[in-house]
Amino acid sequence: MDLGLLYSGGKDSTLAALFLDDFYDVTLVTGHFGVTDDWRHARETADRIGFEFDRLELDRAVAEEAATTIREDGFPRNGIQQVHVHALERLAADGYDAIADGTRRDDRVPTVSRAQAQSLEDRHDVDYVAPLSGFGRAAVDRLVESTLEVTVGPSEEIRRADYEAELRAIIADEEGTEAIEDLFPAHEQTYVTDVRQPHSGI
Amino acid sequence: MDLGLLYSGGKDSTLAALFLDDFYDVTLVTGHFGVTDDWRHARETADRIGFEFDRLELDRAVAEEAATTIREDGFPRNGIQQVHVHALERLAADGYDAIADGTRRDDRVPTVSRAQAQSLEDRHDVDYVAPLSGFGRAAVDRLVESTLEVTVGPSEEIRRADYEAELRAIIADEEGTEAIEDLFPAHEQTYVTDVRQPHSGI
Repeated sequence: MDLGLLYSGGKDSTLAALFLDDFYDVTLVTGHFGVTDDWRHARETADRIGFEFDRLELDRAVAEEAATTIREDGFPRNGIQQVHVHALERLAADGYDAIADGTRRDDRVPTVSRAQAQSLEDRHDVDYVAPLSGFGRAAVDRLVESTLEVTVGPSEEIRRADYEAELRAIIADEEGTEAIEDLFPAHEQTYVTDVRQPHSGI
Repeated sequence: MDLGLLYSGGKDSTLAALFLDDFYDVTLVTGHFGVTDDWRHARETADRIGFEFDRLELDRAVAEEAATTIREDGFPRNGIQQVHVHALERLAADGYDAIADGTRRDDRVPTVSRAQAQSLEDRHDVDYVAPLSGFGRAAVDRLVESTLEVTVGPSEEIRRADYEAELRAIIADEEGTEAIEDLFPAHEQTYVTDVRQPHSGI
């Protein structure tokens, strides 16, 4: 069964890929709006850990709308959620037997409710699976420690292909880089550089 | 990391074992009240698919209480939930680094809420993970089809080591076998006989 996994190059989506690898033909899929080239960082990691990779073109209007939401809210959560829902809808229409993301049990954003999952499956005749949604932060951190090589740093320096990078770029273009510091609180990001131990299928 | 997985010999808990096998040292653990010997069926399947197995002695008083709940309710859901929560509490105190069960996204019973999961983890200093909680019924069925050899039949004939068998026996002992047919609606059960394809670690 062909499965497309929304992929950022971060630890959660990489761990999700390893969980799914024994059961599906997994393609790591990075959504992008054509604003920056950050999707290339995800492709590099996908190549290094031995997975198929694809890009998914997202609707630029959704990014503009999410950027507006973030400016109005004063924080990024709802805007990032809008983009994630859009990316799942696009991926569900892309012909895979199953689609997935790396959301964890205690993620505040993005989240996919049971009802949203069922609706996505019914409308697109696809399975939506979230292999980390039954894992809390501490369990994920311990699995990352035993399984992945990662680089950790402040979110403005770490090159990942999550939606945040492009949303930051759009907002910076419209309101200057100072706006970014106010809207996106500084937090640590991780970027996966390799799989620590040989994994089946890799 | 040592992980104890609550195990019935059914398809969900067997699939959960396969998902966890690459990441943890998995022991399949079957809870029992000493009422019947059905736990032996789970041990047979565990041996066949190549996992460590252990029994977990549960408190007979909890089974009696659950049987009372089921008789009072007229259906088994809440009684089975009581037993599952008790089994997780016992397992969490058993010295594993992580504990797990095979609950799915759309299971009505047993269920473990996010708050219950966090409480279990905090009180016992253990990770609780539910690898199938991000998978719906259709996705699980497709994975079972591609991964496991199963026997399907009516729930009164299939020999599994879930709590239902012992609760049925307690109620039958007190009220006769006719009560069982009223309280436990007939439904199909599956019992895993083997893993269909060679799986890493097996």
